Amino acid sequence: MPEPIDFYFDFSSPYGYLASEKIDELARSHGRQVRWRPILLGVVFKHTGAAPLTLVPLKGEYSVHDFSRSARFLSVPYRHPTKFPLATQHAARAYYWLDDRDCATARVFAHSLFRALYAEGRDISDLDVVIELAARHGADRDLLSVALNGPELKQRLKGECDAALARGVFGSPYMIVDGEPFFGVDRLPQMDRWLTSGGF
Amino acid sequence: MPEPIDFYFDFSSPYGYLASEKIDELARSHGRQVRWRPILLGVVFKHTGAAPLTLVPLKGEYSVHDFSRSARFLSVPYRHPTKFPLATQHAARAYYWLDDRDCATARVFAHSLFRALYAEGRDISDLDVVIELAARHGADRDLLSVALNGPELKQRLKGECDAALARGVFGSPYMIVDGEPFFGVDRLPQMDRWLTSGGF
Repeated sequence: MPEPIDFYFDFSSPYGYLASEKIDELARSHGRQVRWRPILLGVVFKHTGAAPLTLVPLKGEYSVHDFSRSARFLSVPYRHPTKFPLATQHAARAYYWLDDRDCATARVFAHSLFRALYAEGRDISDLDVVIELAARHGADRDLLSVALNGPELKQRLKGECDAALARGVFGSPYMIVDGEPFFGVDRLPQMDRWLTSGGF
Repeated sequence: MPEPIDFYFDFSSPYGYLASEKIDELARSHGRQVRWRPILLGVVFKHTGAAPLTLVPLKGEYSVHDFSRSARFLSVPYRHPTKFPLATQHAARAYYWLDDRDCATARVFAHSLFRALYAEGRDISDLDVVIELAARHGADRDLLSVALNGPELKQRLKGECDAALARGVFGSPYMIVDGEPFFGVDRLPQMDRWLTSGGF
């Protein structure tokens, strides 16, 4: 059985969201699994010196336009959030907490978070929203609340971010297929060909 | 007759080169023309605060890998230049000098410059190489040499860079189709659909 495809993303990344709506189906069509790995772009950008796309002069305006157009191109619903960029440490930590208990539910929860932010106009930087969405998928509110305030889960996410950086992850989405890195939702066609032919 | 598609690029941009090998054919398939507009990314980056891709930590290494892979994906020959990034003001100025005299020859010259750099391993930051390539396409060496040292052609390129910035151009390649901007060679599929359906 081949290794899963690693899928690194930040819950605040529009292109990460678009990839999240496509990657499992793409992998399945090649008989592959995907390991979802939320990270914090803030941590990554500290290392690379990059800034959030929408804060870069000229590129910022274009990007907001491109998020929506790329969503239409890929037939994915998209409404640009009024609060953007936004903090996603609660979302990412809650994901790992769930993932360690029930990875199938964690996947559904991750979709819920992305869709809440990009299709339903909800603020997933809000701790209460994160807990509500997790509870909707069966998470115990009290246990999760305690965990989200504890040092262990913080350390867990920090470890994931450090591991991602060590593998060269510098943005979202970032996929690794059998050691081959692909950055950006616009690299899914190349990833598709790579999976078809084992390289090109 | 519709306006031509504007194609902004820097001769030192690998993704600009890849787009240059595809854009005329794509436009032609929709009955459209392309207006080639070399600019200097150095001028643009001063405005946006961006850095050349290959100098960004982590992203730099990935990018060099991605240039070659994207070239294979698009079936375009590619050898990463040993000297990179490199200065392209002579190349861009010579292009505009030729373009003002014979735009068909300027197009062929532009292809020569890109291929000299990315397929033949030549250093197109070298003034003599630029003049040699232009002369191969019938340019008068002496007249071009004088022009490349004069203030007029410098001003001409500066004007093109300023005009590009005023239209929102922040990178290479950057295409504008009937007012709709597309950034990156990986946006050619979106541009293709846009040209097919007049928007989406």
